[in-house]
Amino acid sequence: MKPFADLGRLVNAVNVAVVGASPRPASQGGRLYENMLRHSALKGTVYAVNPAYTEIDGAACWPSISALPEDARVDVALIIVNGALVLGILKECVERGIPFAIVMSSGFSEAGGDEGRQREREIAQLCADTGLHVYGPNCPGFVNVRDRLGMTFSPAFKNDLHSGRIGLATQGGGLGRNLLQGLSAGPGVGLWFSAGNEVDLDVPDFIAHMANDPDIDVIGVLMEGVKDGRRLAAALELARAKGKPVAMLKVGHSEAGARAAQSHTAAIAGSAAINSAVFGQYGVVEVRDLGELLSTVYLLSRGAPRAGTGLCIYTFSGGTAALAADIAGTAELPMATFTAETASALRDLLPGFAAIDNPVDTTADILRNQDAATECLRLVSNDPNVGAVLFPIPMDYGEVTDRIAQSIVEVSRSAAAPIIPVWMSRRLGQGFQLMEEHGLLPFYSLADAVGALKVIWPASTSPGAGGQASAPVADAESPAGAGQHQGGAPLSEAQSKQLLREAGIALPESGLAADAEQAVAIQQRLGGPVVMKIVSPDIVHKTDAGGVKLGLRTADEVREAYAGIMETVGARAPHARIDGVLVEAMLPGSGREVLIGVHHDDAFGPVMTFGLGGIFVEILRDVTHCMLPLGREEARAMIGRIRHARILHGVRGQGAADLQALEDLILKVSDFAYRNRERIREIELNPVWVGPEGAGAIPLDALVIEH
Amino acid sequence: MKPFADLGRLVNAVNVAVVGASPRPASQGGRLYENMLRHSALKGTVYAVNPAYTEIDGAACWPSISALPEDARVDVALIIVNGALVLGILKECVERGIPFAIVMSSGFSEAGGDEGRQREREIAQLCADTGLHVYGPNCPGFVNVRDRLGMTFSPAFKNDLHSGRIGLATQGGGLGRNLLQGLSAGPGVGLWFSAGNEVDLDVPDFIAHMANDPDIDVIGVLMEGVKDGRRLAAALELARAKGKPVAMLKVGHSEAGARAAQSHTAAIAGSAAINSAVFGQYGVVEVRDLGELLSTVYLLSRGAPRAGTGLCIYTFSGGTAALAADIAGTAELPMATFTAETASALRDLLPGFAAIDNPVDTTADILRNQDAATECLRLVSNDPNVGAVLFPIPMDYGEVTDRIAQSIVEVSRSAAAPIIPVWMSRRLGQGFQLMEEHGLLPFYSLADAVGALKVIWPASTSPGAGGQASAPVADAESPAGAGQHQGGAPLSEAQSKQLLREAGIALPESGLAADAEQAVAIQQRLGGPVVMKIVSPDIVHKTDAGGVKLGLRTADEVREAYAGIMETVGARAPHARIDGVLVEAMLPGSGREVLIGVHHDDAFGPVMTFGLGGIFVEILRDVTHCMLPLGREEARAMIGRIRHARILHGVRGQGAADLQALEDLILKVSDFAYRNRERIREIELNPVWVGPEGAGAIPLDALVIEH
Repeated sequence: MKPFADLGRLVNAVNVAVVGASPRPASQGGRLYENMLRHSALKGTVYAVNPAYTEIDGAACWPSISALPEDARVDVALIIVNGALVLGILKECVERGIPFAIVMSSGFSEAGGDEGRQREREIAQLCADTGLHVYGPNCPGFVNVRDRLGMTFSPAFKNDLHSGRIGLATQGGGLGRNLLQGLSAGPGVGLWFSAGNEVDLDVPDFIAHMANDPDIDVIGVLMEGVKDGRRLAAALELARAKGKPVAMLKVGHSEAGARAAQSHTAAIAGSAAINSAVFGQYGVVEVRDLGELLSTVYLLSRGAPRAGTGLCIYTFSGGTAALAADIAGTAELPMATFTAETASALRDLLPGFAAIDNPVDTTADILRNQDAATECLRLVSNDPNVGAVLFPIPMDYGEVTDRIAQSIVEVSRSAAAPIIPVWMSRRLGQGFQLMEEHGLLPFYSLADAVGALKVIWPASTSPGAGGQASAPVADAESPAGAGQHQGGAPLSEAQSKQLLREAGIALPESGLAADAEQAVAIQQRLGGPVVMKIVSPDIVHKTDAGGVKLGLRTADEVREAYAGIMETVGARAPHARIDGVLVEAMLPGSGREVLIGVHHDDAFGPVMTFGLGGIFVEILRDVTHCMLPLGREEARAMIGRIRHARILHGVRGQGAADLQALEDLILKVSDFAYRNRERIREIELNPVWVGPEGAGAIPLDALVIEH
Repeated sequence: MKPFADLGRLVNAVNVAVVGASPRPASQGGRLYENMLRHSALKGTVYAVNPAYTEIDGAACWPSISALPEDARVDVALIIVNGALVLGILKECVERGIPFAIVMSSGFSEAGGDEGRQREREIAQLCADTGLHVYGPNCPGFVNVRDRLGMTFSPAFKNDLHSGRIGLATQGGGLGRNLLQGLSAGPGVGLWFSAGNEVDLDVPDFIAHMANDPDIDVIGVLMEGVKDGRRLAAALELARAKGKPVAMLKVGHSEAGARAAQSHTAAIAGSAAINSAVFGQYGVVEVRDLGELLSTVYLLSRGAPRAGTGLCIYTFSGGTAALAADIAGTAELPMATFTAETASALRDLLPGFAAIDNPVDTTADILRNQDAATECLRLVSNDPNVGAVLFPIPMDYGEVTDRIAQSIVEVSRSAAAPIIPVWMSRRLGQGFQLMEEHGLLPFYSLADAVGALKVIWPASTSPGAGGQASAPVADAESPAGAGQHQGGAPLSEAQSKQLLREAGIALPESGLAADAEQAVAIQQRLGGPVVMKIVSPDIVHKTDAGGVKLGLRTADEVREAYAGIMETVGARAPHARIDGVLVEAMLPGSGREVLIGVHHDDAFGPVMTFGLGGIFVEILRDVTHCMLPLGREEARAMIGRIRHARILHGVRGQGAADLQALEDLILKVSDFAYRNRERIREIELNPVWVGPEGAGAIPLDALVIEH
């Protein structure tokens, strides 16, 4: 692996040459020269190089690098000339012992032609042969905000005045500048590398440099392609070893994106899945959008939440508190539980009808008392269980929200946990401006703020964080969406099946055996293999209790199975009342298993649940719901709507399942359940066997619960 | 089901009474009275009612509703008094034949006490008994922007001047006002209903009214609870029948959100899964965040894309084009293919190095020619295959972006497809302001814009939309991430297994049979059940070819299986060279199946893929990757990282799999593949049988490909 380049003389350049310097202020050469001469704080000399001039603005201009004074100790040659001339100039640099060249010119591989690619190969070869380091080509240059070195032709550099401890490496120049400027309102950027086509120096070099730079705390990276993954991995490993968090936006998760990136910088996107996996290996925080990269770098610069802490949601509007809690809960962010001290102090400060639990809804009343509002915010942001305070501001209320912004700015100066304001209104009034001026970079939406917090939040939960938010409502239900079988009167499997048979629903032939010999007799009568299932009003999950045996063909197998069921169930559920064992004709193994359920929803009345059954219920939770009664079109739509519908349509050598019979069965169940909705509260058919086309759809297990 | 209320006299009130009117301008009663008297365009009379005054600002004030002049034909009583007095006033309304009352007072169920709940029950009973309709309590009132009726105490109403064809129904007042104001910069709101605790009139009434209102085109709804789902469904059905799209934000997807919503308006959240399913049944566009609701309503007001059209991404920055294409591609938005006319016209207008294909990257060159830039934008937005134009603007470039904004505003006036600007910079300069002033509501981030487009885009794809964007890169790979077995030299299953045995990896005992009797002999030697698999260099997917039979115990079964394999394979792959049939000891059925693969990644070198195997590979694509070589900790982390890791830890009556053996196997494969990385390009072990604890992990099938 090629070692990381020592970028010392690039980053801290003392003397530079501007090849292509121009007196025309609107030209790129003119702007670059002006950036170095007037807007940079270079310690040494700027040498203008251009054969067309002998002087520029009264300063000497040399015809070439070779013609520079012999005592010129140039650290970096900045080159902005026709692409065809670049190689010759670089060779002069080598001869003069100049270690770095930044090539801003275009006309290389990004142009798409053979000529440009050939130029790049020659430059790469020159670097390999001589040790020259080239940054570029086709790039906006390098900006060292910290030391005011603007080796760039960008007219915006003169305003890059606010420096900070964030380092950026971006393959795209325009998006890189967006980040630089966006962060300049907040924590500030120290170094920004943007090396375009990266013919020699590349993102791993820059990450490695910033990992070692004591004045960089957080590294933001935007990549379009990965040239050398092992070298990138080594740079990320270095950053991790040095404790510098890295946030990464890698373009190319979709084919369209990969193609567009390739046509942009001729970079190979690489496999998104592999890239993401490697980023994960090195603790890199991966994001998907530019705004998210900016937010994440910003949040990381304020310090990632400590493990074991939770989020505090704090606002003065009940609806906003509910919405924020919902979005944070759906994202499974841990919610903080306040210490008793915090809770008691909040109770003293807030009105009786405020919500003191997290989420805190101070109600708008508190806004009349600026001191109390500030004090409450200080309390929650200094609670040791709180890792960050999300403060959504639903509206621009003029002076009222101006004061809130003042509180946030004031408390932020000393708070233990960062306060993350969300300015939800499109009116970006003075309150917004005030926070922006103080570097707080308010989010525009709850979802974006929660998304950014989610990617930086440490994965582990802990006692301090209640974690109440982490269980989505859907998970609290049974997979069939059919409640907890609470209350109501469950019928036995045999009774349930009898009821369904009366409703015209076909079920497997079966008999109830009270001992092993009865079981054998039933099996002989049915012929073919059977399944045997324990029947007990006390056992809901028959498989868990060891009460199910499959594929029994001979009398011996049936006897053995009977004994086995009794033994296991006896051990696992010693107090269960046993009604016997159901012996049922077994359907051929080529069927697929689905579930059909109906339950009573408080809001919508009888609702059907359809989804994959058997083991898939637990694992995939792949179900869909529909209000009853159903029409045929709705039944068909339900079957098609589950995520893994193609299991039913047939995968790898399997034909389609009998979708027609499944549709018929769903409609029969719908009609039966809806007609009897006053009597029947819940139906669960799971699994339902669905055979190949023409073979039918038959419930193997059934549970009916009456009101 | 209770019929929908006829809201005619509420929405188009002519005469109103303000109960609690006050001369104090800062009080709620004062502000309400002022809104009606000075800021509304009421056609009739505002009657002030308050026993404390005989006149307010020179106008008469009556002591009670009962005391109003006999000829007063009041349509709506607006009530803002102590909650304890409300019921008495409502009874007076009934006596005087006033059909509607808006109760803004708080002190009801939201206060959490029994008293408040009892007050609500009494009001509900009064409504049921008398036909009086109550809107509220605990609400900010009703705003009819279209006809300038501000039945609200909000001091912001006087600025609600811009009316449009959007209707809003929101349970939360603060968030509703956010929407009203946000949309006032754009398409404008006609009616805003926000009925707080909804003791009588509720969201279904408002949706139904707006569905019938000829001056409302799009309906936005924010709900915290669902009281009567069937009634809500009926209102949504009505909206659908009338062709009015509905965008819905329903709080309560997480437990935390449901709890917070309940404490806010005492509403029951209902099951999020059931709510969403019903919304889906009626074509409701469901969103999760307030900003998303605003954006979605806004996009719907500009017309949803026609089915069969695709997205056009249009920008002047290559990096931005790539990022936008990536985000849209990941969201599986269809990308438009331009007509030949559009493509040719773009080619004439744009420089040679611009990207003409969608995404269009005009390059920054075009920005020097305002007319050409405007013309290009006009071309793409009028292409019949384009359903919407996403125009990301990566930076605020001052005058340059001001001109772009002008182009967008100009073209938007007549373009067939809406242009969706994304202002990615945090500097919201004049260009942003210009678009905002012209009602274009620029998005702040690509991800948000793509998210909103995704929810409104019709689901079907079609010939016009190329759909190139719809296949994520990951899908193009084999599930094992192991490429397409292209190039390289695949070893046969037997050779592959031999190589792995030499590396110390345990495999099932087996033998190769050239005919049925050899197969029987091998089965007899192995004892127990066997699996039989076709061996052919031309057949990669043995199962698909019908070349695999399982669970063969007797000589007859083996003979029959041999014949069956030969027959099916002969039919399905008549030209395949057959080397024989592999007869292999079959492992007990209680194992779980995983896959272990290694392939050579261009960027990262040898990379391992681990995931669920067998049928799960196709269905779940639940795999994870890691660069080789692995340490034990990384191997363990991989096993734990797959989405459905709990299949291995044991679900429903199943114990844990032999994770120790699996870990050992992963490490052995890693070492073998890494040591031999110059020779071996790819390994695929699928399925790998993982038995119960202590039983081992054994690859059942193996494929090794050399470089």
